[in-house]
Amino acid sequence: MEGEHIVKSFDEELSHINNLIAEMGGFAEIQLARAVDALKRRDSELAEQVVRDDRQIDNLEQAIDEVTIRILALRNPVADDLRSVTAALKIASNLERIGDYTKNIAKRTITLSHSHPISGVAASIVRMSALVQDMIKNVLDAYANGDDAKATDVRNRDEEVDQHHTSLFRELLTYMMEDARNITPCTHLLFIAKNVERIGDHVTSIAEQVHFMSTGTKFPTERTKKDEASATVVNPR
Amino acid sequence: MEGEHIVKSFDEELSHINNLIAEMGGFAEIQLARAVDALKRRDSELAEQVVRDDRQIDNLEQAIDEVTIRILALRNPVADDLRSVTAALKIASNLERIGDYTKNIAKRTITLSHSHPISGVAASIVRMSALVQDMIKNVLDAYANGDDAKATDVRNRDEEVDQHHTSLFRELLTYMMEDARNITPCTHLLFIAKNVERIGDHVTSIAEQVHFMSTGTKFPTERTKKDEASATVVNPR
Repeated sequence: MEGEHIVKSFDEELSHINNLIAEMGGFAEIQLARAVDALKRRDSELAEQVVRDDRQIDNLEQAIDEVTIRILALRNPVADDLRSVTAALKIASNLERIGDYTKNIAKRTITLSHSHPISGVAASIVRMSALVQDMIKNVLDAYANGDDAKATDVRNRDEEVDQHHTSLFRELLTYMMEDARNITPCTHLLFIAKNVERIGDHVTSIAEQVHFMSTGTKFPTERTKKDEASATVVNPR
Repeated sequence: MEGEHIVKSFDEELSHINNLIAEMGGFAEIQLARAVDALKRRDSELAEQVVRDDRQIDNLEQAIDEVTIRILALRNPVADDLRSVTAALKIASNLERIGDYTKNIAKRTITLSHSHPISGVAASIVRMSALVQDMIKNVLDAYANGDDAKATDVRNRDEEVDQHHTSLFRELLTYMMEDARNITPCTHLLFIAKNVERIGDHVTSIAEQVHFMSTGTKFPTERTKKDEASATVVNPR
């Protein structure tokens, strides 16, 4: 009975980690949605709230770190369990970064709410972000259910985010060339688009952890990045 | 004797991790120096080599992951040892990101080597990067010697990197406003400067791990970021 009790409590600890990851991921998804909504509506108050609330994501990472380290010390997990625990540590770190990128989107949104609007670009960023938000939702489902097929699907969809980013990069450079007054706001929009693209990379990295947890193997090849922005050149007419 | 043998071998495993971190960090430092040198000399061949060699950093992270997971499974480290092992996992992940940012600097350097030069900016980036390279060197020393004072010093110096980045951000925007042909190259330089600033953040995060390893406590307050670029607005004359 004693042994059984310990086993049950260990399972409870593992499921506690899973719950914390679900909570942290769900909140990261909400924060991104709110940041992009603030951008669309030029709502600096909402953006300020997003900046403030990032602390909650940091606190959740801290809690996950403490639980996992306690499990490693007291339970000495092996095989699948050890993989789950170390994957949780890495996923929490990815979610924390997603929170950081979101906070930066919100900070730049505050700056943008005081400068003149660039028509159409916010809508493009909203579409790109909707894709990434959906990827976050799906990767959290994949994590909760150990669903490798879903994780692989999320990983493949990051290509679309990269393509979106490259075309936004190009578009923003042309706006900057048309009117020097666009340069400052478009620069902040360039970094916002880049932040969304980086969030996509972190979601992909979570998908890779889910794959590792459920199969015990890594993806055989590195994902081909389709983000060509670093090589993009646009010349003035 | 048997017990002693196991203890010795455990120490050897821990020192193997330390050696791998030293190797990975040393190589990350070299890569950054080469990327910035390629930028300064408009040397696309050297930049291409930096892009190719990033794989070596990824392989070292993989090796560190494997050794730490093996130690966690077979040795069940507790207290200080457990802290060292989990810190190594996190530091390896920071160094891998530093490698990624460096690779992106090199990619943009290839693009820049084909566009017209922006005088003076490369020199500013070289100075900013020299500061960050020195921080990498010092944080690796602090890690190797468990030197908390040195780690704290590295963490404090990131403020200077942030200030450097904000002034470069402002400078680049003015170049873009002066001549539309500067817009594409200055945009890549903006992202390069941002990458160096982010590398500084990862070095800071390593310094925080070293502090945690050597004292068992976290820094009481979050570091005040002095990077004002996200809030910077420059208007055309």
